[in-house]
Amino acid sequence: MALDSRSLQWATLAHKALPQRALVTLLQAFDDPGAILAAPAAQLARHVPADVVAAVAAPVDDNALTATQRWIDDPQHHVIAWDDGDYPRALLDIGHAPPVLFYIGSRVLLNRPALAIVGSRHATPQGRTNAREFARALAAANLTIVSGLALGIDAAAHEGALGTEASTLAVIGTGPDRVYPARNRELAQQIAQAGGLLSEFLPGTPPRKENFPRRNRLISGLARGVLVVEATLSSGSLITARWAGEQGREVFAIPGSIHSPFAKGCHKLIREGAKLVETAQDVLDELGLGSPSPTTRASKTAAAAPESELLSMMGHDPVTIDALIERTGAPAEAIAAGLVRLELDALVCALPGGYWQRQ
Amino acid sequence: MALDSRSLQWATLAHKALPQRALVTLLQAFDDPGAILAAPAAQLARHVPADVVAAVAAPVDDNALTATQRWIDDPQHHVIAWDDGDYPRALLDIGHAPPVLFYIGSRVLLNRPALAIVGSRHATPQGRTNAREFARALAAANLTIVSGLALGIDAAAHEGALGTEASTLAVIGTGPDRVYPARNRELAQQIAQAGGLLSEFLPGTPPRKENFPRRNRLISGLARGVLVVEATLSSGSLITARWAGEQGREVFAIPGSIHSPFAKGCHKLIREGAKLVETAQDVLDELGLGSPSPTTRASKTAAAAPESELLSMMGHDPVTIDALIERTGAPAEAIAAGLVRLELDALVCALPGGYWQRQ
Repeated sequence: MALDSRSLQWATLAHKALPQRALVTLLQAFDDPGAILAAPAAQLARHVPADVVAAVAAPVDDNALTATQRWIDDPQHHVIAWDDGDYPRALLDIGHAPPVLFYIGSRVLLNRPALAIVGSRHATPQGRTNAREFARALAAANLTIVSGLALGIDAAAHEGALGTEASTLAVIGTGPDRVYPARNRELAQQIAQAGGLLSEFLPGTPPRKENFPRRNRLISGLARGVLVVEATLSSGSLITARWAGEQGREVFAIPGSIHSPFAKGCHKLIREGAKLVETAQDVLDELGLGSPSPTTRASKTAAAAPESELLSMMGHDPVTIDALIERTGAPAEAIAAGLVRLELDALVCALPGGYWQRQ
Repeated sequence: MALDSRSLQWATLAHKALPQRALVTLLQAFDDPGAILAAPAAQLARHVPADVVAAVAAPVDDNALTATQRWIDDPQHHVIAWDDGDYPRALLDIGHAPPVLFYIGSRVLLNRPALAIVGSRHATPQGRTNAREFARALAAANLTIVSGLALGIDAAAHEGALGTEASTLAVIGTGPDRVYPARNRELAQQIAQAGGLLSEFLPGTPPRKENFPRRNRLISGLARGVLVVEATLSSGSLITARWAGEQGREVFAIPGSIHSPFAKGCHKLIREGAKLVETAQDVLDELGLGSPSPTTRASKTAAAAPESELLSMMGHDPVTIDALIERTGAPAEAIAAGLVRLELDALVCALPGGYWQRQ
C-alpha cells in the first residue's frame, strides 16, 4: 500500500517502535518521515545501527495500514505527530514520548494545564463521589482532567469534568477505534465529543495487558500532577503515581479508613511522600494555582443548605443526634427533621442504638 | 505546719514552681530540699536571683500542705522526686520536668518503654475501637500505653492496655486525688490498681483549663512516640503531638475519611511530617521494635474466622455482595450467609440498592 499521506507515514514509523533516540537521529538526518521510509538501507546505516535499519526496512502489515488509513480518513480523527504544533508539549519532557498520537476531540485541550485523577476500578461509592467532586472543582479551576477511561475512579473523574470548559482527556490503552471496557462506550463517546480521546496505539490494536501500564506514563506525563483517589495495593494507579514521580510531577493521594482496602494504596503513596489532600483547594495550593473559580465557590455555598451541612458533619461513621447537635450547634428538632428528610432521600440510614450513618 | 517529711518538703518546693534552672542550682548548692526551705534569704541570694529567693521564702498555704500531707500518708501513694530512683528517666530530657510526681500505682511502670495514644474526647465509635485495638496490640508488644484519662480516645487506649503486663499510665491534669472527668472515675480506679496514675499537681488541685495543655508535655515526654488516633483541628492531642515533636519523640497518626472532622487533625499532622500508620506493626517498625508478641499474632489468626474476614473486607463504605465475592474469593452463598449472621449480631446493616455496610 502506498504511504501517500504524511499522517500514514508517521503512523507507519510509529508502528515500527524505533528507539526514541534513533528516531530523532533519522528525523534530523532526513527531515521527513516519508524520506526515512523511502531511504535505501545503506543511507539509513550511515546514521543508525543495523537493527534499526532492519526495523525501518521491515514490511508493515498491510491490514494494519489499511485500518489506519481508514481511521485517518475521518475528518474528526487527528494524527498528531512530534512535528505537529498541537503535540502536547508536556509529553516532550517525559522521555519515550510516542512519535504519534491518535486523537479524537478538541486540539486545544492537548496543551492546557492538566491534572490526572486516577484510582481503582473496583472503587467504593464514596470514592467515586470523591473523584467526581474533585474533578469538577479542579476543572472549574481551569485544570483539564486526565484519566484512563477505566471503570470506577477513572470514569467518575471524567464524568466530573465533562461539561466544564477545561473538560477532560481520556488516554486509552487500545487503538483509538476501540473502547475498553465496553461498559464505558457511552462515556467514551461523550469524551470524544466534549473532550479528547487519545491513544498512542495504531487503530485496530486490541486491549493487551502490557499496554496499560505503559499507557499510564502518558496520563501522568500530560499532567502537572496525579491525584490518586482510591487504590488497592495492586491498583494500576500506583504505577501512574510512580511514573509521575519519575517525571517530576506532583503526586497527591486521598486518605481513608485504615480498614478499607481501597485506601491502602493511597496510604502507601503518602508514606512514600505523596501529598495528603482533603480538598481540591489543597491540590491547587500545592500546584501554586489560585482558588477555584467563583462558580465553584458559589456551588459550595449553595450546597451548604441545612441537610447538606448535616450530611457533611455526619462523617462516615455511625453518629448520634447528640453528637450532631454538638457538631452543628443546631437544635435537636432541626437535626431530627433533617435526618428524616435525608433518610427519605436514602442518603442516611438509622442504625440500632440511636445511631445514624451516611450511606 | 512543720515540713518534717522529705516528701512534703519536695511537694512544697514543687508548689513554689521555681524555674527549673534555679531549682537545680539550689539543689546543687544545698543538696537537700529541706535545707533549701530552711535557708536564710541571704544564703539563697548567693545562688539565685531575688525573685527566686522571694518565691522560696513566700509562705505556703497551710490547707494545701495539710491536704498534701494527708495524701502522702496513704501507703499506696508515692511522691516521686528528681532524686528518686524511680523518677521516669524519660522525663529528665524534656526540659521543665516537674521536680515531683504524685503517683498511685506500680513504680516499675515509670521506667518501661512506653507509647502515648491520644485523641479527641468526642471520638467516633470506630475511633474508640481503633484506639483500644492499637493499645492492646502495642501493649502486647511490651509498650506501656500512656494517655490522659480523657473521654473518648484516651479512655479507650487505657482500656485496651489494662490487663496486659505492660499496662497503662494515666497522666492527669488535676491533683492526684481528683478524677476529671467524673465519668472516668471507675476507669481511674482500675488504672490506679493495675497500672499507674500520675500527676504533677498538688493534691487538691481542681481541674483548671490551663493545666491540661501543660500536662500534655508529660504524656509525650514519658513515651517514645505519640499516636494520634482521631483528632479534630481543635483537639488537645495536637498539642501533645507538638510537644512530642519538640521533645524528639516520634509522631504517628491514623488517617480517615476526608469527610470526617475527626480525621482532620490527624491529616494535618501527617502533612506536617507525622508517620501515617495503619497497623500496630507500622508503629513498632518505625520505633525499630520487633513484631508484636505471639499472643497478638495468635489472636489475629483466631479473628480470621469467615465472618471476621468478611467484616474486614467490607471496609466502611457501602458494598455489594458482588464486590465481596471479588474481594474474598468466597462463593456467593457463603457471603450471603455470613452477612445474615453479621446482621443478626448487629455488625452490618442492609442498605437500599443491594448494598451492605458495617455499623
